Amino acid sequence: MLVGMQQKVNPEKWKFAPHVLSLETSIIREILKFSSQPGVISFAGGLPAPEMFPKEDLKRIAAEVIEKHGDVPLQYSLSRGVPLLRELLAKRASERGTPSKMENILVTSGSQQGIELLARAFIDPGDYILTENPTYLGALQAFNYYRARYATVPMDNDGMIIDEVEATIRKYNPKLIYSVSNFQNPTGVTMSEERRKQLVELAAAHDIPVVDDNPYSDIRFKGDRLPTLKSFGGDEVIALRTVSKTIAPGLRIGWMNGPDSVIRQFEKVKQCTDLHTSTFTQLMVYEFMNQGLAEPHIERIKADYGAKRNLMLKTMDETFPEGVKWTRPEGGLFLWVELPEHMSAKALFDKAIALKVAYVPGGPFFPNGGGDNTLRLNFSNCTHETIVEGIGRLAKLFKDNA
Amino acid sequence: MLVGMQQKVNPEKWKFAPHVLSLETSIIREILKFSSQPGVISFAGGLPAPEMFPKEDLKRIAAEVIEKHGDVPLQYSLSRGVPLLRELLAKRASERGTPSKMENILVTSGSQQGIELLARAFIDPGDYILTENPTYLGALQAFNYYRARYATVPMDNDGMIIDEVEATIRKYNPKLIYSVSNFQNPTGVTMSEERRKQLVELAAAHDIPVVDDNPYSDIRFKGDRLPTLKSFGGDEVIALRTVSKTIAPGLRIGWMNGPDSVIRQFEKVKQCTDLHTSTFTQLMVYEFMNQGLAEPHIERIKADYGAKRNLMLKTMDETFPEGVKWTRPEGGLFLWVELPEHMSAKALFDKAIALKVAYVPGGPFFPNGGGDNTLRLNFSNCTHETIVEGIGRLAKLFKDNA
Repeated sequence: MLVGMQQKVNPEKWKFAPHVLSLETSIIREILKFSSQPGVISFAGGLPAPEMFPKEDLKRIAAEVIEKHGDVPLQYSLSRGVPLLRELLAKRASERGTPSKMENILVTSGSQQGIELLARAFIDPGDYILTENPTYLGALQAFNYYRARYATVPMDNDGMIIDEVEATIRKYNPKLIYSVSNFQNPTGVTMSEERRKQLVELAAAHDIPVVDDNPYSDIRFKGDRLPTLKSFGGDEVIALRTVSKTIAPGLRIGWMNGPDSVIRQFEKVKQCTDLHTSTFTQLMVYEFMNQGLAEPHIERIKADYGAKRNLMLKTMDETFPEGVKWTRPEGGLFLWVELPEHMSAKALFDKAIALKVAYVPGGPFFPNGGGDNTLRLNFSNCTHETIVEGIGRLAKLFKDNA
Repeated sequence: MLVGMQQKVNPEKWKFAPHVLSLETSIIREILKFSSQPGVISFAGGLPAPEMFPKEDLKRIAAEVIEKHGDVPLQYSLSRGVPLLRELLAKRASERGTPSKMENILVTSGSQQGIELLARAFIDPGDYILTENPTYLGALQAFNYYRARYATVPMDNDGMIIDEVEATIRKYNPKLIYSVSNFQNPTGVTMSEERRKQLVELAAAHDIPVVDDNPYSDIRFKGDRLPTLKSFGGDEVIALRTVSKTIAPGLRIGWMNGPDSVIRQFEKVKQCTDLHTSTFTQLMVYEFMNQGLAEPHIERIKADYGAKRNLMLKTMDETFPEGVKWTRPEGGLFLWVELPEHMSAKALFDKAIALKVAYVPGGPFFPNGGGDNTLRLNFSNCTHETIVEGIGRLAKLFKDNA
């Protein structure tokens, strides 16, 4: 050992930026520790149902990408992403009402990286981001890293209350508008068509880019698919997409769809960051989609999650006490519960764990605080049996503590 | 179309941070455009030889990861990386003289992401980083993003000239020391054992973390493996590793080996950034290594690249004119040429392309300028025929323009 080496290195002694030291690990991950205790029925996670993964197809395709594409899946590639995949993603977006070319697509390592790139490019400390209230926790983590502040807009069953958007823009001058417009995490709420139009109109009038974080829109159980924000907003809107909820999150494939001129800026940042996303898993996703496997697979997911959602709502209708309200999502993975004002979902969490049932208290989804009486339930990653039993336990919890 | 939507969005109108707008795309990528013209023999790239990729093994393993690991390769995972892989990487590091536990390992999306995380955690605009002169261009791109400045230390055939390090530290008070200690990109030079000891001693005395960016150490053709900086420096050193040069860059698997307390900080940043690196490709790398395939494969790479390196040196010895000097790397992918002071490798580049041969002019590898008379040659990604022919063309170029 050399002189000076015996001492333990202390990260505070190293010059970590203060906002790194203060970063909280996700509260959801902490809650997941409790909820993964044996015997606990957990509605806390947000994972896709692993039994739904298209394992046989992906096993075959994993071998095929080397057979069909030779060295390409193993070699360095473009920072924007593999052209074959970008072309296909653009074509699919165009077919669904969002005219796109491959120049509009940047492949990212999950849509979390899309959020991070946007935060990094647009946010200086203290800048405001306009969000729904509540909003997605992973986005808040990425934005908090850049010390963003939040101009929040309340929601009803049709999404962000648009009548409040203009005043909020005038008051806070936000750098970005961030929306999860379809089957929002955490509420399960979808923005209505009329409000979509209004939102992008307001954004355009004030020259504020709109980020439409959209992991869930393909998983619609009922009702009609709505036009995307981008189909109204064009170049004003950057859409973030991912296969994490429709194929498999372990592949880490997401993408950004935006104006070519803006994508060109993000490409440079992506290059500094990690050169490019895995060529191998990009080509796995390309093959899965190009072989026509995505649509039938999504149908299976919809049938599975839809049945679970129906059973969860039915059991809630039958068992939850008066004064408790909840959303009835037409798709996605989550629904949202509002307890009477005087009840705290956070304070009840320990009692829930004692009853061996878990959820995510809603507070952390509200960037500026509040929402103590709310909680999020996931219905994708449980069985019919655990839904009936677990919702029953929650009903007892809410009755006993009303 | 809505009012206001007809106008083309202009990224300057959006509030991109100025350092994003000013980011240069890599000069190497620009050069690669020229060097990929038909008939051009290119020593400009830095790609591993695609014909060496272990395609059959990886094809089998890609299917096996789902067979053996079930849902795990497809599901979300820990931000630090898959425990099986981290355990194996720690064990391998320990066997090679760097005692490590899995808590010391953070899996990254290539070692570029390791560089980026370090830059992001340690660098505020204007901070100094101590580097070898010249140094790796990809690191400069990541550091430039954070508006770092550079305190450079010249090199000789034993690496960074250590006698100059202490004065440089005192003068510039750098936040980080960044070294590519083995078969450096771009020079091919390896730091001597004595200097390794001295460097970490100095770093410890001044409490400056040392980053040992080490993608090439396994690819040693001759001489003995030297102890790593980390084996001398312990917790003072963060090592960056990758399988990009030894298995396949398209998998985007790298890792950081550092003190647990520091890795814990990076884990939080990694979580905000992209949640985690692909579970699927992490488990591919785990299986490849765990099945004992890495060592024999690296032997094949060493034989292939070593023979190319020998032939390139032999041809240079026979043909290059007096006054031109070059390194004789004991491993890696690159060697480095110094032309007489009055010659400019950049100015000669167009003439080289006219002779249908390409290299990378050395200037961009010098963070504070200079090095106009230098150039980098890659020997991994060419054939014996193109080496003899291409080096002959360069010899003619240098003679004709001496």
